Amino acid sequence: MTNTPRFDGYAAKIRDSFARQEMMRTLGAELTSVAPGDVVITAPVLPEMRQQHGFAHAAVTFAIGDSAAGYAALSLMDEDAEVLTVEMKINLLSHAAGKRLIAQGHVVRPGRRLVVVGATVFAQDEDGAQTQVALLQGTMIPV
Amino acid sequence: MTNTPRFDGYAAKIRDSFARQEMMRTLGAELTSVAPGDVVITAPVLPEMRQQHGFAHAAVTFAIGDSAAGYAALSLMDEDAEVLTVEMKINLLSHAAGKRLIAQGHVVRPGRRLVVVGATVFAQDEDGAQTQVALLQGTMIPV
Amino acid sequence: MTNTPRFDGYAAKIRDSFARQEMMRTLGAELTSVAPGDVVITAPVLPEMRQQHGFAHAAVTFAIGDSAAGYAALSLMDEDAEVLTVEMKINLLSHAAGKRLIAQGHVVRPGRRLVVVGATVFAQDEDGAQTQVALLQGTMIPV
Amino acid sequence: MTNTPRFDGYAAKIRDSFARQEMMRTLGAELTSVAPGDVVITAPVLPEMRQQHGFAHAAVTFAIGDSAAGYAALSLMDEDAEVLTVEMKINLLSHAAGKRLIAQGHVVRPGRRLVVVGATVFAQDEDGAQTQVALLQGTMIPV
Repeated sequence: MTNTPRFDGYAAKIRDSFARQEMMRTLGAELTSVAPGDVVITAPVLPEMRQQHGFAHAAVTFAIGDSAAGYAALSLMDEDAEVLTVEMKINLLSHAAGKRLIAQGHVVRPGRRLVVVGATVFAQDEDGAQTQVALLQGTMIPV
Repeated sequence: MTNTPRFDGYAAKIRDSFARQEMMRTLGAELTSVAPGDVVITAPVLPEMRQQHGFAHAAVTFAIGDSAAGYAALSLMDEDAEVLTVEMKINLLSHAAGKRLIAQGHVVRPGRRLVVVGATVFAQDEDGAQTQVALLQGTMIPV
Repeated sequence: MTNTPRFDGYAAKIRDSFARQEMMRTLGAELTSVAPGDVVITAPVLPEMRQQHGFAHAAVTFAIGDSAAGYAALSLMDEDAEVLTVEMKINLLSHAAGKRLIAQGHVVRPGRRLVVVGATVFAQDEDGAQTQVALLQGTMIPV
Repeated sequence: MTNTPRFDGYAAKIRDSFARQEMMRTLGAELTSVAPGDVVITAPVLPEMRQQHGFAHAAVTFAIGDSAAGYAALSLMDEDAEVLTVEMKINLLSHAAGKRLIAQGHVVRPGRRLVVVGATVFAQDEDGAQTQVALLQGTMIPV
């Protein structure tokens, strides 16, 4: 399925929205890629974001997975729309260990009223090797 | 159902684990209450944890809801057990606006192999009025 | 929170909708109770609805849990609304053994655009003793 | 990722288990394909399995999606293992209209203690055209 954006400036709008998320800045997250229905966000594994076992906290994995999925949805919405998460399910597959996390968000089904989304989060080590750490499935709503 | 802890020091163990979570410190989160099968965590709505609309990021709501639920599970596990989140579903009900967030985690069903948990997250304003902002349902595993 | 229906005939509307669900008839399900924001559905554990271990199939538990939650949502919607499930998460807690299943659906948060719901499903044995077999959390939409 | 079964008779074991599920027979479901980590189940849209709007009930979609995912997990488990659903999340994308439903289950991450799975369910009309009606994500446990 080819996803078609509804207006030309969708990527600029997403980059602007991302820049206004103080949480993303706090996490050191970056918007690595923006395409219609597909958005990638990366974040370093920061010491201050660790859980009790020394790995990145699941909230970091959730944060960038949810945001990547939300921006994937936003990339297919109308120009004046903003996006909110209705619900999100996350399955944690492995420890979020390594140097950085990479979240690939995508649109499963775009709709006028609701957009169903998914995201996959990988942990990347010093050598660039990636391990899948989480799978997300959720629903976004335009507001 | 009355929940019975398996050893006396369950609360001290949870307080110690919480103190080792750098993410909780970064969020300014506090362990407000620890009882068998019921744990409460609170966190301020910090400027650096906001999303693009000025409310607390869903990741903060997730972080303290997931942690409250996880520690509720840990309170009923064996002395040498640690806890990991297998999966978590969050429904977001309202904007996380206000002064602070309060997450009440509880055990739905304790089991040897898996513990099913839930959490409710409220936002509290300057006057102490509370609004429910999220409902979580998930699975924890002892490791 | 008190739930207020938007028109007098909400219960009759739900009973009529339930009667048109051939799946409910096939399951032998009954609408046991209808109140604003709270609906109970029961179903026998039929031989033809069993899984490979001899218990009621999870699909039966899902069917009555999802329907009880959906009708709980419908009880608070406008007179001309119908209800559809957007998404549903089910945690299975115990084998669905016994004589019959009882699903209690409730509204977590009613909204104009979406209604967040939950349901608890119990199995009841010959002596009337109940065991919780599932917990559901999901989202309904008026159409 | 290539999925490797742990013993030769995995497909026969799954076919035998499927045959013992009375629920699958009641639904008229068939095990269309069994491969390591990938299982397909199809079911007709039967009149007696419809909801109030005349489409297949979500419980049918859930039943074959959950079963396809569960058998995909079982295909990678030990010879003496049985499989149980721990939890399952379903997003409903379109009406389950048409002639039959096709559920493709797959393993996301096989593990000794838990197996994370997914399933996609399509509705197929008289002309063979397919529409995706649901996406499932869940957790299976060997017992």
